Amino acid sequence: MIILGIDPGTAITGYGLLEVENFFSPRLVDYGCIRTFRREKIPRRLTTIYEKISEIIFKFHPQEVAIEEIFFNKNVKTALSVGQARGVIILAAYRGKGEIFEYTPLQIKQAITGYGRARKEQVRYMVGKLLHLNKTFLPDDIADAIAVALCHCYHRKLEKLSSMKENERVSLLKNLQ
Amino acid sequence: MIILGIDPGTAITGYGLLEVENFFSPRLVDYGCIRTFRREKIPRRLTTIYEKISEIIFKFHPQEVAIEEIFFNKNVKTALSVGQARGVIILAAYRGKGEIFEYTPLQIKQAITGYGRARKEQVRYMVGKLLHLNKTFLPDDIADAIAVALCHCYHRKLEKLSSMKENERVSLLKNLQ
Repeated sequence: MIILGIDPGTAITGYGLLEVENFFSPRLVDYGCIRTFRREKIPRRLTTIYEKISEIIFKFHPQEVAIEEIFFNKNVKTALSVGQARGVIILAAYRGKGEIFEYTPLQIKQAITGYGRARKEQVRYMVGKLLHLNKTFLPDDIADAIAVALCHCYHRKLEKLSSMKENERVSLLKNLQ
Repeated sequence: MIILGIDPGTAITGYGLLEVENFFSPRLVDYGCIRTFRREKIPRRLTTIYEKISEIIFKFHPQEVAIEEIFFNKNVKTALSVGQARGVIILAAYRGKGEIFEYTPLQIKQAITGYGRARKEQVRYMVGKLLHLNKTFLPDDIADAIAVALCHCYHRKLEKLSSMKENERVSLLKNLQ
């Protein structure tokens, strides 16, 4: 199963794709960021984001898409701008048949580092660790996108485990080892 | 030439279509609102808005699309939600080859009533007057959408007139009478 994580923004939208088995053992399949130019008009920039996300979805067929929610302490102008980018990303995901999940920065940091107010470097470090990456110098926007995908795996895994009967749970955990 | 005016929102998006000749003599061609259900999830609701706006654009081929900007005194949550709706509307307009223009509520009220802080009823009344409508009981969201289209005509007309030479201007105004 493929999970797509997205950190939305008008200038830079980061994305990361994880392959998982029952939400265990995530493996990084691809990642990158979609950049749009400040000198281009907003409609052109939103269209670029929509088309690139659609391309990624067409190529990898993620069944679930995890998107980072905005900090609610940002200002109204930022919220409007990020909202526009999120709108076209959600549209692309929905039209690509992906189910959409949203996580706050607090939930993401909590899931990745165990601490809701962790610093960016800590998140980046843990993303590298959790995915056994050699390079821990992922750019922030990409690390954030992978982090939201990892956070999603974590939540779904807990959900799955808690809905199972004891013997099923034991056999699943054995099979995965 | 056809102009599409849009008042965006996740629950209700109003729209109005004007036919104009050189941005003079606007005539109301069609109007309506796109409603989405609160019990539906956001991705489904954004997709409905995107698809309906795309249908309208496909049917009427507006060359220019005028969209109402949000009040910047709204809160961050509202801005994010309206931003998402705006994102998919701008995408639909851009993909439908329409050029996009944005106006603040202040600019719209100023253009329609001559007063930037006019009340909703005043705007609605003037929209009816300017378009010689018999019924002045248009719903607010539709009146707002038509108002942004009228505001756009007004701005474009001024732009056009001020870029013309004196004799051209006189002959245009004569022809239109």
